[in-house]
This record gives sequence, structure tokens and C-alpha cells, in this order.
Amino acid sequence: MVERDIDDLPKNPANYMALTPLWFLERAATVHPDRLSVVHASLSYTWADTYRRCRRLASALSARSIGPGSTVAVIAPNVPAIYEAHFGVPMAGAVLNCVNIRLNASTIAFLLEHSSAEVVMVDQEFFPLADEALKIIADKKKGEFKSPLLIVIGDESCDPASLRDALRRGAIEYEKFLESGDPEFAWKPPKDEWQSIALGYTSGTTSSPKGVVLHHRGAYLMALSGALIWGLNEGAVYLWTLPMFHCNGWGYTWSLAALCGTSICLRQVTAKAIYSAIASHGVTHFCAAPVVLNSLVNASQNEANLPLPRTVNVMTAGAAPPASLLAAMSRIGFRVTHTYGLSETYGPCTVCTWKPEWDKLPPEAQARLHARQGVRYIGLEGLDVVDPKTMVPVPSDGKTIGEIVLRGNIVMKGYLKNPKANREAFENGWYHSGDLGVKHPDSYIEVKDRAKDIIISGGENISSLEVESVMYLHPAVMEVSVVAREDERWGESPCAFVTLKEGVDGSKEGELAEDIMRFCRAKMPAYWVPKSVVFGPLPKTATGKIQKHVLREKAKKMGPVRKSRL
Amino acid sequence: MVERDIDDLPKNPANYMALTPLWFLERAATVHPDRLSVVHASLSYTWADTYRRCRRLASALSARSIGPGSTVAVIAPNVPAIYEAHFGVPMAGAVLNCVNIRLNASTIAFLLEHSSAEVVMVDQEFFPLADEALKIIADKKKGEFKSPLLIVIGDESCDPASLRDALRRGAIEYEKFLESGDPEFAWKPPKDEWQSIALGYTSGTTSSPKGVVLHHRGAYLMALSGALIWGLNEGAVYLWTLPMFHCNGWGYTWSLAALCGTSICLRQVTAKAIYSAIASHGVTHFCAAPVVLNSLVNASQNEANLPLPRTVNVMTAGAAPPASLLAAMSRIGFRVTHTYGLSETYGPCTVCTWKPEWDKLPPEAQARLHARQGVRYIGLEGLDVVDPKTMVPVPSDGKTIGEIVLRGNIVMKGYLKNPKANREAFENGWYHSGDLGVKHPDSYIEVKDRAKDIIISGGENISSLEVESVMYLHPAVMEVSVVAREDERWGESPCAFVTLKEGVDGSKEGELAEDIMRFCRAKMPAYWVPKSVVFGPLPKTATGKIQKHVLREKAKKMGPVRKSRL
Repeated sequence: MVERDIDDLPKNPANYMALTPLWFLERAATVHPDRLSVVHASLSYTWADTYRRCRRLASALSARSIGPGSTVAVIAPNVPAIYEAHFGVPMAGAVLNCVNIRLNASTIAFLLEHSSAEVVMVDQEFFPLADEALKIIADKKKGEFKSPLLIVIGDESCDPASLRDALRRGAIEYEKFLESGDPEFAWKPPKDEWQSIALGYTSGTTSSPKGVVLHHRGAYLMALSGALIWGLNEGAVYLWTLPMFHCNGWGYTWSLAALCGTSICLRQVTAKAIYSAIASHGVTHFCAAPVVLNSLVNASQNEANLPLPRTVNVMTAGAAPPASLLAAMSRIGFRVTHTYGLSETYGPCTVCTWKPEWDKLPPEAQARLHARQGVRYIGLEGLDVVDPKTMVPVPSDGKTIGEIVLRGNIVMKGYLKNPKANREAFENGWYHSGDLGVKHPDSYIEVKDRAKDIIISGGENISSLEVESVMYLHPAVMEVSVVAREDERWGESPCAFVTLKEGVDGSKEGELAEDIMRFCRAKMPAYWVPKSVVFGPLPKTATGKIQKHVLREKAKKMGPVRKSRL
Repeated sequence: MVERDIDDLPKNPANYMALTPLWFLERAATVHPDRLSVVHASLSYTWADTYRRCRRLASALSARSIGPGSTVAVIAPNVPAIYEAHFGVPMAGAVLNCVNIRLNASTIAFLLEHSSAEVVMVDQEFFPLADEALKIIADKKKGEFKSPLLIVIGDESCDPASLRDALRRGAIEYEKFLESGDPEFAWKPPKDEWQSIALGYTSGTTSSPKGVVLHHRGAYLMALSGALIWGLNEGAVYLWTLPMFHCNGWGYTWSLAALCGTSICLRQVTAKAIYSAIASHGVTHFCAAPVVLNSLVNASQNEANLPLPRTVNVMTAGAAPPASLLAAMSRIGFRVTHTYGLSETYGPCTVCTWKPEWDKLPPEAQARLHARQGVRYIGLEGLDVVDPKTMVPVPSDGKTIGEIVLRGNIVMKGYLKNPKANREAFENGWYHSGDLGVKHPDSYIEVKDRAKDIIISGGENISSLEVESVMYLHPAVMEVSVVAREDERWGESPCAFVTLKEGVDGSKEGELAEDIMRFCRAKMPAYWVPKSVVFGPLPKTATGKIQKHVLREKAKKMGPVRKSRL
């Protein structure tokens, strides 16, 4: 008879604690009290400062009975206060909801009401927006509405009038609020690592925004996993081009505390500002959507501070970077890591891990491999491409399209107050991404399209992404987005919206469109070739994603492609 | 009324899985199937191979009803099989017990009986030892004894006779055993991350060995934390000088799978073999006790393959590396990271994080800072130095000695079948290390001694470590260990055991001892100066730790220091 007591050793306070990224901050302040934590224009804080400021924030919130179950909304660009909120809010036990600053007042009103925000921290520039959103709720709720505590974050680089106006309207200044808190506040870690730490709303391109709830355990694991995946080591210098309100900066807000790295804030993301920060702050890493990479590659001599003083690591996600863009970035000296993820997975959760043996391939082949979404993060336990009805994995042939499904510890807790969405999202023990993709023979996955972005022409599926990636090779194309347009003959056909590169003569649109279509015919199946090409700027979300639903609306207004055209 | 439903989202199979390092292996085999995983002499395996071999092992064990609650003992040096056991055994649900190969048969008998080992995997060279241990148990238990399943690991570099002998005595050959298993075995992760994954016995210098039980959660967190602390990045090449039976190779067995790195095995650790592996395998990282570093620094031209082809990262622990050693290592091109830990903390759990600003200090000052044990690992949540009775932290003055206490997720589950030891170890919500240390003004801790290694002379505490660190500066001293010797006048006084450097004329011991004492008198308080200096080789544990208890015995046999000598 074998004794089974090897598992009979209970948890105790010395060997079990809730996983939470909050300890990272305490550790950074202990190990590197004098190292820069956050730099913003002429402001700079050390880790000792940041820890004290976050404790002050937690203390001041606690004093106002903000704690477990409360939500604190932050409406701000990448300034120190939003970084501090990532620690100060959960140190009070509350949940952080960073709001996309490019939303309109009525959407923000929806979010604040849906999340029952008890505090709204808002950057002075965005105070009028927040104010308008709160008025919308007040008008709707009439006497029942209790306004949340309004805190305005001042910024020297903004017009002082907007700060004065906010104070006049009853907001407390953030620095004053911090002063009311105790810098030695005895914050408590969460009792349970499953406790919620953050809430983030999906962009809601298809329906009402959904509130994605994340927990301390996942934030901890994402922070470590994201650092390991990217080689973000001790003392990294990270440039905040990616908004922190986007999936908590893909978890790097917390990673940087774990690694005692330095955050360089950037209020306005421009190519010039990025090159300048790289030159002056020793930036080693930043994250950016492909559209930002595009602007770096196409920056004028005046904007680009070249050559780079060192290799700079860039993580990108959101859309597969076109081959030409990857090659151009590499020539400049950026090492691009391509990832894929969703708000529901704390940000990126797959990575196109680069293999040294690919270094020897020709650039085109490299770019094709690099454009894939790759393999699962260390912190994600399961990734597959399946038939969404039967859950049977597709063959690893690089061709058969299925739904990308994920599972593991960096998958969200669920959507707030949305049981129906939760049931659908978590059906059959996997999280359903809604993205369509293939699995290559080497196990790397590749996103082919959002389910709704597939164009069905004459019964054949066309991946709008694949059409776009070819069009990006055309010398005049700066950005392109392809959507379905109604077609009398084929049901749907591809319609391309194109922004031209600077210097390209856009006056002869007809000729240019013909040239682009000719280019496409030479490189893709005939039925993929866009039947319509429209020139102009592309509508984008706050995070730089092209808003295909806006383009789809435009295409709809254009009416169907007539048979006679053929 | 605020809705509190933000925490009301339950775990489900898509968003919660037990943390376990086992997924790292599956991931490595998916991402880098063709990359080398383990290299041993002329043998080399890829990650695809290793995954298949581990699944075979798990399958073969399962077929013999080895599963949850079972213990599998491994008695082997750093060969591929012990690496594979780190995954194959827990993939079957069982607990891995790696046994120190330098223990004697009666101690091994104690361990195998105490852990109720159902399987013993043993390297052919150590088969006679295992056989003898089992005989001891059989003799003791008489008819009641059911021999565990004996598996012998063959190694081409050993005498074939010992393998033949093992097979004759009924052992199954490891490769045959693997062949009986299914390479596609559908292993299951643990249901609960608190499930035990490994068992390791303390060296038992003070009492019977204690069985330290570790769990899947801790192994996962240690693997990630240890990689981040050290900058062990994707694709690292790790040399196994540290025995894997020592705290599972400080968790790097599992880290290497997470990072898809390559393990270079080393059956015999010599300076020549280390330099040769660095030159031929592209080694980037290895761990070693200071005694191994000593041998590298003192290697002959014939043994040392210099200059190093690249900076090589070395992690050390076990005793504070003396200043002279650190300086010499750095001159050769090794980057030494100094850590501290225990079997009870999965290996190292504090690290002397190097600060870039220290680069500018003079070498002596650098070495003094570097010799400290430092700050907590990312995966450890609490570290302090306290009065063990009151639990009040000592002041951060670098002087006041207290007990080093720790808590967090990389603290062991507990000791196997030892409630009394568990109560003592986990008293007051902290794990009590039994080590004495100080906290410096910059929060770095420094170990002053094991509680029992403090020498009390005339009522004053003398840290034997501090005496040693001065003695290491003497040009003739290769290694030194200082213990208490009975002293008629002072109660105790320091007694030094010294190994001389090669080339030093040891024939005139009296003169040399006088010279060393004179050297000490110039550099330390008079009462610290050893009253006795003894020359000869030092007794060591399997992991290269000097066995002070053996030296204390020697000092005891020498009798008290007479008053007349003064």
C-alpha cells in the first residue's frame, strides 16, 4: 500500500499568495528606487516616486470608499497618471477601466454607465468630452444620477484654460488628490488572484461595446509572458506609442515594473516624436500598429533621426504587416516582432517566433513567414484552428480555413453583464476569436480574415487581407483596405480603399486605379482583383486599426457593381 | 447602489488551467521541433525527439500504474534521461525525486523508503549503489518489501560491464522501457496546480534528510522567474554543470523548455570540460557553485580555452563568492550573477541585481557589493531579515543580524511526512531559512552565516563567512572554511581549514600558518583571527558545498585551544 500523503500539504501564508502584478511595483521601488520609472516631457519620476504616488492614489481612493467591486475610469493619453492608475487603482482593490480617448461622448456615456464608474480620472484635454458624456447619462437618468468623483489630470503641455475650466466645473486636480493620500499607505494584495483588476471595452465594430474583465492572475502571467516572448530584459527603456488604454498597453504597463524598466510617455504619436525619443532616451522597445510603422518608414529626412543608435525592438499587431513594410523596417534597423491577440486575451497571445535559419532566406520569403501570426505565447496553454461547428482542428496545410480558438490563463474572465456573449465566447471549452485562419505545416497560424471580412464572390471566399497584402506591393500605395461591395453578377466583389504615398500624383484617379488593377491581375486570381478602387484617407480607430465597418458602409452607399461594367 | 458583479465571472475550461511547466515542452516541440533540446557526448535530441521520448516515458509509467501519488526516484548525473524525467514523470501524474548521487547507500535507502519510491531510474554507473540501498531496505523490512521497478540508464561512455550486470540483476534498460511507451501518449496536465511535481531531500547536515515537496504552480513560476532574473532568452544554450538533482537544476530544466533553449549535458564537471563546451557548443549560460568558478579561474593554460568566444553568463549560489574570485572571473569574460536560495525555495530566490552605476566603482567596492545575496526574485513575494522571536524586521543598517525569512509562491509546499518540521519552518506566516543575515541601507540582504556557523568567542559573534572572505585574499589560499573550535579561554575561537593554490610550497606548514595569521591580523579584529590553521583538501557535498559539519567534527577531535598558547 503506497502512502498518498505527498499531496497532503496545505497552502499557508508563507507558501501561497495571490498572483498579482502589484508586487512588481513594490519590488522595483526596493531594488531600483533611483532608476527612472516614467518620463513625460520635462517630468520624470523614479521607481521610489512612482511607488509613493501609487500608494497615495490608492490611499486617497480608499478614503473615498473606493475598493473591491468599484470601477475607476481613466480617460487619458499616455501620461504618467494613467501609468500610475494601473497600480494605484488595484492597490485600493478597485478595477481600472481605461477608456479609449477617441470614442465619442455618447459611447463613453454608455461605458461609464455600463461599468458603474464611481471615479472618472480625465486628462484636461479630454475633460469636455467626459463632461459631455456625464451630461448624457444625467439627462437620461434624471434625478437618479449620482455623478462619479471627477479628477482632472493636468498637463503642462496643454492649454491652461481647459484645466481652469475643469476645476471650475467641480473636478479635483489629480496632484491635489494624490496629496490627500498617504505615501506609506498599507495597501493589500487581492485575497484571490481571480479578483478583477481591469476592464476594457471592445471597439464594438459589430455591436454595443463589450466589457472585457481581466483578473490579477492573468495580468501577472501576461506581464511575465510578454516580457519573455520579446526579450524585454531588466532595465529596458520602453516608448509608449501604443496607448495604455489599449489592453493595458498589452500588459507592458505591468511588465515594466517587473523588469524595473523605464516608460517614456508620448502624448502625440508622430514619426518625428518616435525617432526623437529613440535618439534622446535610449529606447530599446516599443509597440505599434502597422500604420505607425508605415509612418516611420515613410518619414521625411527631417523627421527621421537616422541611423538608429542601436537596434530597436518593435512589436506589432492588429493587421499582418505587409512584406514591403517589414523589409523596409529591417533595413532601417528595427527588429519587428509580429504578434496577434485580442482584448479578450490581455493583448497579444500569439507571436511569429523568428527562427535563425530564416535569416538566410530571400527577403520575400522572409516577409511571407513573418506576416504569419505564429505560435502561442508561453502564458497561453492552447491555440488551434478548428471547424467552429464540430471543433475538429483543420489540417496543417496552410489552406483550410477555420476559426482561431484559444484557451489558457491569459484568456479573459468574461464579458461584464453579458451572459449571452459569455456563453457564445466560451462555447465548447475554448475562447472563440471570431477570426478565420489557417494552420501551416510548421504549426504557425495565419489569420486570413475576421469572419465578417471575408468577401464571398461567386461562391468563392476571398480573404480581404490577402488582396491587401498584394496591393501593398504597388509603388503608389501607402495604405489599403479591401471590403466587400455588392455586385450584381457575383453577389459581392472586392472594393479597395487606398491612401497614396506622399509625392504620388493623385490627380488622375482613373488612370491610377486602372494601373493598380492591372498590377493586381498580374499577381492574383482574377476574381480577387478589386472591381472598384477609391482614393482618400482611411477611417481609423484610436489604436490605428482601419475601421472596415465604416468602409463597408461607404461601399454600401456606392450601390452594387453593375453587370454592364464587365 | 453599485453593482458588484464585476467579480462574478466564474472560471471555465477556456480561461483557467492549472499552471504547470509541462505545457512548455509541448510548446517547444511545436515551435522548434528541429532545434536541439539536449546534447550529451555523441547523442543529440531535438525538441520533437524530447517530447516524444517524454511521452513514451509517461506512457510506459502509466501502463505500470504509476500515477498521481506515486514517486519515481532518479539516481543519475546530468544525462538526457534525468532531463526527460523532469517532464515524463509528472506527465504520468507522478512525483519526481532526483537523488543526490554522492550520498551513501544507507542514506539512499532512507530516502527511497521515506518517499515510498515505486520506480527507481538509475544510471548504470550508480547501479551498484542503488542495488546496495535496496538491499538495505529489503534486509530491514524482510518479507514485507516489494522492490520498486528498477530501470537502468545506459551510457556509452561507461564501462559496458556495469550495464550488463544491472540487466542480469533484473533491471529494465531505459531505452527498452521507453520503447514500450506510446510516443503520442495523451498525457494530462494536473487537475490542480497545487499537485506535487517534485521531491528533493535536503543534505541533512543537521538531522535526517527532509523531503522538500514542490508543486506544479511553483515550478511554473520559478521557471519563468529564473529566466527573467538572469536574461535567459529564447534559444539560450545552457551547460549543465549544476546537477539536475539539485533543486531540479534550480528550475532551469523547466525554463529551458519555456525558452526553447538547448541543454548541454556534462557527466563530469571539470574546468577543461566547461571551457571545451563553451568553445564547441555556443554555451551562453551555466550555473555553478563558487568552487567550480575557482577551478575555472585556476585552470591551467592547457585546460582553459581562452579567450572566450563570447560573454558567458554564470549564476552562482551556495556561498558568497570572494572578491578576488569575482574579479578574476570578470577579467576572463564571465558575467557572474550571485544568487541565494534553498531547496525549500525551488533553488535561488534572491539575486544580487547588478546596477549599471556600480560599473564605475573600484573592483574592491564592486566585489563587496557583488558578494551580497541581494533582493527577492520576481516570483518571490516577500523577503526580510527579522528577529526570529518577535518577527520585527532588523534595521537596514548592514550590521544588525537577524534571520532571513521568505514567503511567496516559490516557497515549498512543505516537508514530506514531517508535521513538526513544517510547523517550525512556517511559523508566523513566513518560511524560516535558518540563515543569519543583515539588511543593507539599499535593501540588499547579505547572509552572515548559518545560525550554527556563527562562532561565539568571548561572548562576541564572529561570522565565519567574513573571516573566510578576508582569508581568500591571501595569495596562497585556494579555498578556506572557518569553523568554531573549543577554546579554553574564549569558549570558542575560529579554526581555519585551508587548501593551498597549486604551486604553493606547502612543506613548511608552520611558517605558512603564521604568515596567514599575520595577514589576518592586519585586516580584521584580533578576536576574529583564526587561532588554528589546518591545511589539506576540504570535504564537500555533491553540489560542491563545503561540509562544515565534517570540519566541526575535525575541530572537535583537535580538542580545545589551550590558554597557554596565548
